[in-house]
Amino acid sequence: MDVQIFEEIEADVRSYCRSFPTVFHKANNATLIDTNDRQYVDLLAGAGALNYGHNPPAIRQAVVDYMLSDGVSHALDMYTVAKSDFLTAFQRTILQPRSLEYKVTFPGPTGTNAVETAFKYARKATGRQNIIAFTNAFHGMTLGALAASANNAKRAGGGVALSQVTRAPYDGYMGDVDTADYLDKLLTDPGSGVDAPAAIIVETVQAEGGLNVASASWLRAIADIAKRHGALFIIDDIQTGCGRTGTFFSFENMGIQPDMVCLSKSIGGMGLPMSLLLLRPHLDVLKPGEHNGTFRGNNLAFVAAKAALEFWDDADFAASIATKSKVVIECLADVAQRYSSEGAHVRGRGLMLGLGWDDPTIAGEISKAAFENGVIAETTGAQDQVLKLLPPLTISDEELQTGLGGLVAAIDFVMAARGSGSTLQAAE
Amino acid sequence: MDVQIFEEIEADVRSYCRSFPTVFHKANNATLIDTNDRQYVDLLAGAGALNYGHNPPAIRQAVVDYMLSDGVSHALDMYTVAKSDFLTAFQRTILQPRSLEYKVTFPGPTGTNAVETAFKYARKATGRQNIIAFTNAFHGMTLGALAASANNAKRAGGGVALSQVTRAPYDGYMGDVDTADYLDKLLTDPGSGVDAPAAIIVETVQAEGGLNVASASWLRAIADIAKRHGALFIIDDIQTGCGRTGTFFSFENMGIQPDMVCLSKSIGGMGLPMSLLLLRPHLDVLKPGEHNGTFRGNNLAFVAAKAALEFWDDADFAASIATKSKVVIECLADVAQRYSSEGAHVRGRGLMLGLGWDDPTIAGEISKAAFENGVIAETTGAQDQVLKLLPPLTISDEELQTGLGGLVAAIDFVMAARGSGSTLQAAE
Amino acid sequence: MDVQIFEEIEADVRSYCRSFPTVFHKANNATLIDTNDRQYVDLLAGAGALNYGHNPPAIRQAVVDYMLSDGVSHALDMYTVAKSDFLTAFQRTILQPRSLEYKVTFPGPTGTNAVETAFKYARKATGRQNIIAFTNAFHGMTLGALAASANNAKRAGGGVALSQVTRAPYDGYMGDVDTADYLDKLLTDPGSGVDAPAAIIVETVQAEGGLNVASASWLRAIADIAKRHGALFIIDDIQTGCGRTGTFFSFENMGIQPDMVCLSKSIGGMGLPMSLLLLRPHLDVLKPGEHNGTFRGNNLAFVAAKAALEFWDDADFAASIATKSKVVIECLADVAQRYSSEGAHVRGRGLMLGLGWDDPTIAGEISKAAFENGVIAETTGAQDQVLKLLPPLTISDEELQTGLGGLVAAIDFVMAARGSGSTLQAAE
Amino acid sequence: MDVQIFEEIEADVRSYCRSFPTVFHKANNATLIDTNDRQYVDLLAGAGALNYGHNPPAIRQAVVDYMLSDGVSHALDMYTVAKSDFLTAFQRTILQPRSLEYKVTFPGPTGTNAVETAFKYARKATGRQNIIAFTNAFHGMTLGALAASANNAKRAGGGVALSQVTRAPYDGYMGDVDTADYLDKLLTDPGSGVDAPAAIIVETVQAEGGLNVASASWLRAIADIAKRHGALFIIDDIQTGCGRTGTFFSFENMGIQPDMVCLSKSIGGMGLPMSLLLLRPHLDVLKPGEHNGTFRGNNLAFVAAKAALEFWDDADFAASIATKSKVVIECLADVAQRYSSEGAHVRGRGLMLGLGWDDPTIAGEISKAAFENGVIAETTGAQDQVLKLLPPLTISDEELQTGLGGLVAAIDFVMAARGSGSTLQAAE
Repeated sequence: MDVQIFEEIEADVRSYCRSFPTVFHKANNATLIDTNDRQYVDLLAGAGALNYGHNPPAIRQAVVDYMLSDGVSHALDMYTVAKSDFLTAFQRTILQPRSLEYKVTFPGPTGTNAVETAFKYARKATGRQNIIAFTNAFHGMTLGALAASANNAKRAGGGVALSQVTRAPYDGYMGDVDTADYLDKLLTDPGSGVDAPAAIIVETVQAEGGLNVASASWLRAIADIAKRHGALFIIDDIQTGCGRTGTFFSFENMGIQPDMVCLSKSIGGMGLPMSLLLLRPHLDVLKPGEHNGTFRGNNLAFVAAKAALEFWDDADFAASIATKSKVVIECLADVAQRYSSEGAHVRGRGLMLGLGWDDPTIAGEISKAAFENGVIAETTGAQDQVLKLLPPLTISDEELQTGLGGLVAAIDFVMAARGSGSTLQAAE
Repeated sequence: MDVQIFEEIEADVRSYCRSFPTVFHKANNATLIDTNDRQYVDLLAGAGALNYGHNPPAIRQAVVDYMLSDGVSHALDMYTVAKSDFLTAFQRTILQPRSLEYKVTFPGPTGTNAVETAFKYARKATGRQNIIAFTNAFHGMTLGALAASANNAKRAGGGVALSQVTRAPYDGYMGDVDTADYLDKLLTDPGSGVDAPAAIIVETVQAEGGLNVASASWLRAIADIAKRHGALFIIDDIQTGCGRTGTFFSFENMGIQPDMVCLSKSIGGMGLPMSLLLLRPHLDVLKPGEHNGTFRGNNLAFVAAKAALEFWDDADFAASIATKSKVVIECLADVAQRYSSEGAHVRGRGLMLGLGWDDPTIAGEISKAAFENGVIAETTGAQDQVLKLLPPLTISDEELQTGLGGLVAAIDFVMAARGSGSTLQAAE
Repeated sequence: MDVQIFEEIEADVRSYCRSFPTVFHKANNATLIDTNDRQYVDLLAGAGALNYGHNPPAIRQAVVDYMLSDGVSHALDMYTVAKSDFLTAFQRTILQPRSLEYKVTFPGPTGTNAVETAFKYARKATGRQNIIAFTNAFHGMTLGALAASANNAKRAGGGVALSQVTRAPYDGYMGDVDTADYLDKLLTDPGSGVDAPAAIIVETVQAEGGLNVASASWLRAIADIAKRHGALFIIDDIQTGCGRTGTFFSFENMGIQPDMVCLSKSIGGMGLPMSLLLLRPHLDVLKPGEHNGTFRGNNLAFVAAKAALEFWDDADFAASIATKSKVVIECLADVAQRYSSEGAHVRGRGLMLGLGWDDPTIAGEISKAAFENGVIAETTGAQDQVLKLLPPLTISDEELQTGLGGLVAAIDFVMAARGSGSTLQAAE
Repeated sequence: MDVQIFEEIEADVRSYCRSFPTVFHKANNATLIDTNDRQYVDLLAGAGALNYGHNPPAIRQAVVDYMLSDGVSHALDMYTVAKSDFLTAFQRTILQPRSLEYKVTFPGPTGTNAVETAFKYARKATGRQNIIAFTNAFHGMTLGALAASANNAKRAGGGVALSQVTRAPYDGYMGDVDTADYLDKLLTDPGSGVDAPAAIIVETVQAEGGLNVASASWLRAIADIAKRHGALFIIDDIQTGCGRTGTFFSFENMGIQPDMVCLSKSIGGMGLPMSLLLLRPHLDVLKPGEHNGTFRGNNLAFVAAKAALEFWDDADFAASIATKSKVVIECLADVAQRYSSEGAHVRGRGLMLGLGWDDPTIAGEISKAAFENGVIAETTGAQDQVLKLLPPLTISDEELQTGLGGLVAAIDFVMAARGSGSTLQAAE
């Protein structure tokens, strides 16, 4: 099978397929197989939608059993057993152990639905319109969420002025300057020209923005600023959540409780479209039907999501993420040291890791070479300047070693071709 | 199982569950079963997302087989066999027989994604920002699509000013006045104050707006107006498409070829989240990545969608819809005649049918009484003033008879309680 | 003196000077004199800013005396004798005899300031954002007022999306359709997609829009619609006020009391920049400084305005306008009859009168020919399709006869050149 | 005469009159006289509109002579001798000696007209929509200019979302951080979320924002950033221009040539409403009539403006401003030293000077006490935290000494009442 049908009939806007130009056929855990039976180690994992790997057996079986038993697959927002089971499990496995009290909203199947809905709640609850979002943020591609996203090319794609969002500098954006202090000043000064915000929305790690990690102290400062200025504090945990940074929520153990949390991607278990918006109970201000949507009741996703939550019943799961994170970091740190003169440095946390470089073209070349080596790894950042690794949290040790091996070889290949690191290699 | 977990933890914004307050457990074709083993005839069908019924055997089996064979469930917009197969089938079964030449975009899993993306294409292709949308339109709930939607309560839920959309009166909105002529005047008059539009977006039947049917001649006039004024003509076929009005597209046999078509709901086969945006080839102007999203590659939906397209390989399928439509219309017409003094009248076309009433509270009472009779039927319109029936296109004769029987009994019950139609009933 | 300095250094956006390309030097009442000592009858009168003519002796003397006595010329919004005297006279001469109770705001020196400020009051008083404005409306050129203006070319000049205004059809815009009924329906229907308005703003005669006259019954209907839907009713009397339509306010004797009235142009007596916003006392909701501006205290304008109000102490003044209106109408009606086959027809009321034609290029040709005949008369309408006459209300009979004579000759000349009206001319 | 008529009929939005609650009657140079014949030294000067003092003899005489000679007072944008004379003088006296090549636009009589028009030019010339404006900026109160203004209370008065402006930190806003570098980073980083700007608009001294002075090097950096990023560089010289900072333009001798300059306030000579927008010739992109307005041809202002320009034919005039500036600075520095423990410090440059204090309530108390001492001095800043002095540039030495004396006495009185500076006073 070749790619002809896509080139013939699919619109040019498609993107990932251009970096990985083959037709995939089968997949299991961190392994993808194309129609030529070539195997790839998947270090992209659906951009974080496949934290539990491809076709995780228990999750898949739960979905198949459900389907074959005449389970309801689609139910708008009507009550179903699958939804009840999911909510019960979410409360028991996730919220209660973390002493989190949230109402749950099913805002639609995608992350951008969750963000748009969070903004509706924030604006209605506060009576304000402005939202504070950060440099290099990514929150979605529909018009309300796009206004909060920072990638200028994607913003321009909107075709209209994006409004009611004020941009603030993320942690570390201004070198040593405390950007939380600056935001506090803007919101305190009645002459700042920054309108009182309904909410501040933040990613704890900017995944699409280049693997920028916010410190816990900065996040606490932002949470405190939001509180003092009457704004709601929203964490967009769409890519960072569901264990990606090592704990279920990316903000655990940081001393903060967001007013709202957006979840999507891996919440649907095996890549099934689903999102959640968690909100503190006093914010439950939208009336019945004030937000709706056809696919808020993707019951197959509820079944998969419940099965996926079982990973979190076992404390060893988080420990295994930490172990794998350490493996990846050590591998990347070694590479970074080798190419320190090209500015190579490790970025990210948990299993959301990557390598930054001085020259923004390097990461793309590595991605391409890695694909040729049988490794799927994408780039991130507004200039695609960072190599990003998001392996399934469930990746086997063997897959991980194969993947990292192929990746490192690709890096060395690219750097050698650029005439870099040759001294070192010659010395070896 | 009771509804306690929902009341405890799910946000108040949920809506359909309030009309149908039980917990559903199983479903097959047009039959839903709750946890008390009570059966309901489903004349709502996921608001049009279940045109092929609950758990259609061939579609379900295709999905299960795919999953169990390690098929790729989620692939961003990478190439997969499932996607290739879907595109091939869509081209062969849908586009080619209808002599339609379109590029296909996968804009995300929901209808609102398709609409937002259509607006991006329209604005970029024309360099204009304004969109013409109609009274009582519904196009989605994210900010860009919400601006085009006409329900004022849902608009207010956005919490910010919705802009860059000009409202025009739909066919029939002004009695005998030709509303297409009026729109033409607004776009011709340089002093109208209506900015040149990038696109005109229209539903051929306004499903959420109260089952308002546009005539073919009016739609042709709107298409012509769009063309003459340099605007793109977009048909939002999200609820009306996939056979709901009797043909695959709702605009077939009308002498129009839209510049773009939005599809969702039943395109995913058995309620799996998926949407498509079809666009004429010269409009393929968004660059790679200019629009994106995590769940554009819901491969289980592609598998289901391909299996669903097989219904359209059989010409008898459209004929069966026509037959069922006739049955429903005759039933409703009979009721309408009985309650003509209350303004009862049949609305809609194909299997998107309903009853309008003078008093806007009647439809809701009927829906409630029907539920007690074991029939799921919702209301539509900004005042919930119309009773709306969207049975699965595959509904069995027996299910249909049971459903209509329960519905008619509910209507008679409600009207009797209101003291209406008593003469007739006394005579019986 | 020639026009070289203007062509060399003044930006291309200048416009009126292109229709009347000479350098004016002196002016008195309705007579303008250029640097070649050529005299022109001024039937434009500063687009309504010179209702009392050029250099009206009493007004001018009052200003000169005030200046020479060290009167305060500019005082921001501080209290001055000139301002006190004006307010006292305005209350005594204008408001009290008409039983109008208004608070007076000095929003800045121009009409657009008055409109922008009216919108601020309306939005704050109602907590709503949307404004209803009409086809072919003109309300000003700053961004808030421009959004309400309907000329599409001027709107495009704004360079950004103009929002928070819904366009509605003016009286007569849809032939026999009652456009007030349509607006009422839009505001009543919860599915219209027209957001609840803070205000409805209307001109009683659309001066820039082509001399479209609203009927009293339509205006009453609009006022009633505003009231029933919780919107404020604003009359933009900037060009129609100060006697232009025969009474001080254009809406007198119509049975309506607007919530706000915008005045400018001739309120400053002899073309001195000044505007007023009148508002019903309960709408006085802006806090000190919430709107401001440097030139709200143009005290020379206050002195001129007070002197101008003396015209209204004499009941004969209104009668004289009626008399002159009749003279102009008879003259125009005669012409219109002569060229009825070209669609010539009289438009307007009071001394805001003109001639419409089928061919939109005729009015411009007449204006040009009239200028050559020593008459200043501009065109109006989005296509400049209407010839517009706004003589000073104080124009002498001799000036009026000269002006009309020159105009009629110009019309006949133009029409003859176009080969029209030949039958008549052959008969002469 | 008392203030009763104002309290009875003028809307509550009036503001300056609340600080100076008396009725003014006469005025000459820097002296105001109220209806009780009490004299005040005017250190406010119409917020910069009276740089040449009240009733400057030569300017006044020119206006009176013009009026009495039947000069045209109002001419829309038609050519007049007065306008020709002004343009010729402006070119000869202002532009040519400074080697500035600009086209001149008459955008309407107020500063906000000039700013709105500058934005129209910038957006049309660049095809972009975003404008960069700074913290604590003031650019006007109509919706387009208000969006660029930074005072949050005034912004809220707009009643709608203000969009298409990105706020950047002014020089010194972030302590030692180079805010120009930060802006450069935002415009360079494709992931900053700051859309490409049509223009950057800046005041060289933020007059309403609290007398914040930008350094020449910072202004040059901003000009350079604008150029490198394809944005136009606009200086809003409305309050800082016409000699207020010591030279005609506030940016002279700084090595920058703005793409556009907004002038108003004192350009009209003696407080007559007038504004100018200067633009570099290649930016002359608005077509005839694309911007317009009734009062763009305030010919009395042109006459006054031309007469005022004669001040600039004499090099001694600038020298006299410098001398007076020195006098005021020395006086303020002395006071500031006395109250250094209250954070008193001198702010501003030229004859736009003032005193800042730690406690934001002090300035208002001083203004009030000064008024009781016969001195008119306002406060500035979003919290009214700075005492601002804008004496006429023509103030006599005697007036200046009287004014400063009354002011210093008021300061000492206020500070003594607050229990401050007591050591010093005890020593006296």
